[in-house]
Amino acid sequence: MKSIVEQLDPIFKPKSIAIIGASDTEGKWGFRMVETPLKTGYTGDIYPVNPKNNEILGLRSYRSVLDIPDHIDLAIVTVPAGSTPQVMRECVDKGVKGAILISAGFAEVGSEGKALEDEVVRIARTGGIRFVGPNVMGIWSAAGQLNLCLRQLPKPGPIAFVSQSGTFGGYLSEIANAKGYGLSKFISIGNQADLTASEYLAYLAEDEETRAIVFYMEGFKDGRGFFDLARRVIRKKPIVIYKGGNTSAGARATLSHTASLAGSDAVFEGMCRQVGLIRAQEALQSFEMAEALVGQPLPQGRRVAIMGSGGQGVVTADACASLGLEVPEFDRQTVTSLELALPPHAPPARNPVDFAASYRTTLEETSMTEKLLGLDYIDGVITNIPVNPTFWGLKPNSADSSKPLSDSVEAAKLFASLPKKYGKPVVCVRFRRADNDPVADIIREAGIPAYDTPEQCARAMWALTKYAEARRDDES
Amino acid sequence: MKSIVEQLDPIFKPKSIAIIGASDTEGKWGFRMVETPLKTGYTGDIYPVNPKNNEILGLRSYRSVLDIPDHIDLAIVTVPAGSTPQVMRECVDKGVKGAILISAGFAEVGSEGKALEDEVVRIARTGGIRFVGPNVMGIWSAAGQLNLCLRQLPKPGPIAFVSQSGTFGGYLSEIANAKGYGLSKFISIGNQADLTASEYLAYLAEDEETRAIVFYMEGFKDGRGFFDLARRVIRKKPIVIYKGGNTSAGARATLSHTASLAGSDAVFEGMCRQVGLIRAQEALQSFEMAEALVGQPLPQGRRVAIMGSGGQGVVTADACASLGLEVPEFDRQTVTSLELALPPHAPPARNPVDFAASYRTTLEETSMTEKLLGLDYIDGVITNIPVNPTFWGLKPNSADSSKPLSDSVEAAKLFASLPKKYGKPVVCVRFRRADNDPVADIIREAGIPAYDTPEQCARAMWALTKYAEARRDDES
Repeated sequence: MKSIVEQLDPIFKPKSIAIIGASDTEGKWGFRMVETPLKTGYTGDIYPVNPKNNEILGLRSYRSVLDIPDHIDLAIVTVPAGSTPQVMRECVDKGVKGAILISAGFAEVGSEGKALEDEVVRIARTGGIRFVGPNVMGIWSAAGQLNLCLRQLPKPGPIAFVSQSGTFGGYLSEIANAKGYGLSKFISIGNQADLTASEYLAYLAEDEETRAIVFYMEGFKDGRGFFDLARRVIRKKPIVIYKGGNTSAGARATLSHTASLAGSDAVFEGMCRQVGLIRAQEALQSFEMAEALVGQPLPQGRRVAIMGSGGQGVVTADACASLGLEVPEFDRQTVTSLELALPPHAPPARNPVDFAASYRTTLEETSMTEKLLGLDYIDGVITNIPVNPTFWGLKPNSADSSKPLSDSVEAAKLFASLPKKYGKPVVCVRFRRADNDPVADIIREAGIPAYDTPEQCARAMWALTKYAEARRDDES
Repeated sequence: MKSIVEQLDPIFKPKSIAIIGASDTEGKWGFRMVETPLKTGYTGDIYPVNPKNNEILGLRSYRSVLDIPDHIDLAIVTVPAGSTPQVMRECVDKGVKGAILISAGFAEVGSEGKALEDEVVRIARTGGIRFVGPNVMGIWSAAGQLNLCLRQLPKPGPIAFVSQSGTFGGYLSEIANAKGYGLSKFISIGNQADLTASEYLAYLAEDEETRAIVFYMEGFKDGRGFFDLARRVIRKKPIVIYKGGNTSAGARATLSHTASLAGSDAVFEGMCRQVGLIRAQEALQSFEMAEALVGQPLPQGRRVAIMGSGGQGVVTADACASLGLEVPEFDRQTVTSLELALPPHAPPARNPVDFAASYRTTLEETSMTEKLLGLDYIDGVITNIPVNPTFWGLKPNSADSSKPLSDSVEAAKLFASLPKKYGKPVVCVRFRRADNDPVADIIREAGIPAYDTPEQCARAMWALTKYAEARRDDES
């Protein structure tokens, strides 16, 4: 039997795609499934299939998939539900390797649709075709340079996103992308008639481009199987999950939406804890946490050092403590040595360290961060992306103020190297940083996440500690 | 005795300002306090004061405030703490009406600083000068077109922001501004040696440009007085508060930062409930909630109707229910009538209504929203900014698809008028909306807030219900 990688690679890395139900009418699914890959960089061959057209968007259109004079790795199906059994039979005859059933009107609309869905599954299984859907938006696969559904092409990156909701999943992908969280894959999984959440998880566990897996789920086809597999996968990669339907109002909505029985929130919470899944409280927070998990070393404990300006330190400390992280007071020697880099009016640098509206060089902030990472009772640091005084036209307090920009860049590279050097995570607030600040760019490109708010930093650190604990539990 | 408005207007609407301690050295406070108002549109007269310079940034500099040949409404003081008593005496002699003490090194550094602070207060009180600070970042006042501290000039708007933390407050203002929440004022209140949170509250209560007041606080000089006043102010305007120092780690930080005894979180929570202050759980969420409070009618109850796509409806329903809002099932007639505007494969429109990845005209979405607002068992609606099919190049399902853009714009105006017509709030997600979509612009300009996530919508609706309840409690 083929491995899960062999089974799913034709879907996520196809050399050729056929769009069955292609259309030349703007706005229709059959149009978008031709237009989107064509316009967003798919480099394989695209074959529209529609008996009524000879040409769609400048591409020759075929009457049937059987007429295409080439191998087809992936069939994208947008025909009405009733025609899908026939289409799937032709795909089997053609030797198509994988399919995505965009079409709706199956199990989600009732028993008749369910019977149709079962028939398509039977044909596909017998014929050796694995398929995504039905009732989906499509996929984005960085490895395949294939985008079927996202309006802004994501920055390729290490986060895979699997979503039971198509449109909302696409929207989340787009926001995540706008915030700079690179995606390796987006998969709208729909009714999971053939491929299920567990199988996508198994595939992504093996996917070299994926270093963290984010799920939006409403209910599971095989909850036990999913959690058993997740327990094994987290030895290799973190999994962050947001689950919809935690309240009775939400559960009613999941029932209408994906026919999912949302189940007890307490049971789900217990399973996540037991298995080591990291649970997000808000849908978008999954990506924030995944960003830290892919870029930072895992902490040995929950003890956090915090630097920031005034209220920023207060809010960070509150947010950390609320999540069960510790903010230990620094020893006296550390306090004294930190205060050398602060203005005389700064309060005692006990933790948090208050910058007290002073300006420091990039190197000074880097040295302070390094000092904290070196403490044996500190497991991770939350601070600002270090200021780049030269870039901002600022004059720092210290004698270094005359040094050129290149020194800030060098210091930024040093800062970026610290998490690896100490084996401890650093997460940052983009405190008053411009988008094109070279210091900020170097640091973020090195995998140190940069968030808008202190609360996001605290959640990221919390996720790192949760994942570290799950890994340790698993080893012990 | 002068009213609070008469006392504070010279600070927030000065016709002339003197910067005492002005500097021609970039990066220094005395430089920024001249440069920032000069470059960001202050239209009054600016007088630098510094005995060492004849000219600063092209403006004539004076040896002393007493040498300025003009009335001075507002003195901005950046001299070292030790020189402030002398400077304040000269301001009194000059007949200056208000002051902002930027300088640090007062009560926040210990008993010696406290003695100095007390002396400055005595001089100012005797001389009839009210002042902001010391130990502050400065202010932004839309009414005075005066910006002393924000790097991006805010869009003027109805939200006043009072912050006990200067740098962090400035950062929050800048993020709030980037998200489009217009600010009437930003006030960094520092040590509150003279003017206190209660007095700013009293002033803002009378300020015609301010329709909601946001506080970042760590502790109160006169908690009882503040809450008593707040109880009266909320009859006119909503107050949203974020309080730092809710955990022991945070409280330790507030003690170092603003010498505030953060006090018990439970006591603070109880006071907020009793008085009707709306408490934000995260600092930035204050602005999101204020945006809804200034633009939308208050709901009569907690019953919310939700429209959105698939998982979006699920997440919105969960978020609403978690906050104690209700998501009642629609009556049968309503379900049937909503379904006329949805594709056949859409699930039953029971609440939430699932758009099921279909496209509708702006007018169709407007009609659906109106239908929900008309239900006597619904107090508010959460939906998407209605799609503008023409703008997006989409072909809606309905026969309206051939109608021109102007019809979308007309429908948007209709949508924008609905909250007032029904006396019920509408809040929206910017679901896949471009920045320059005229439909989105019309709706947001009419005061209907547009957020990135369903959770933000739920919190906004929660804030509206909390404020409505506080107003009703107060009347009863």
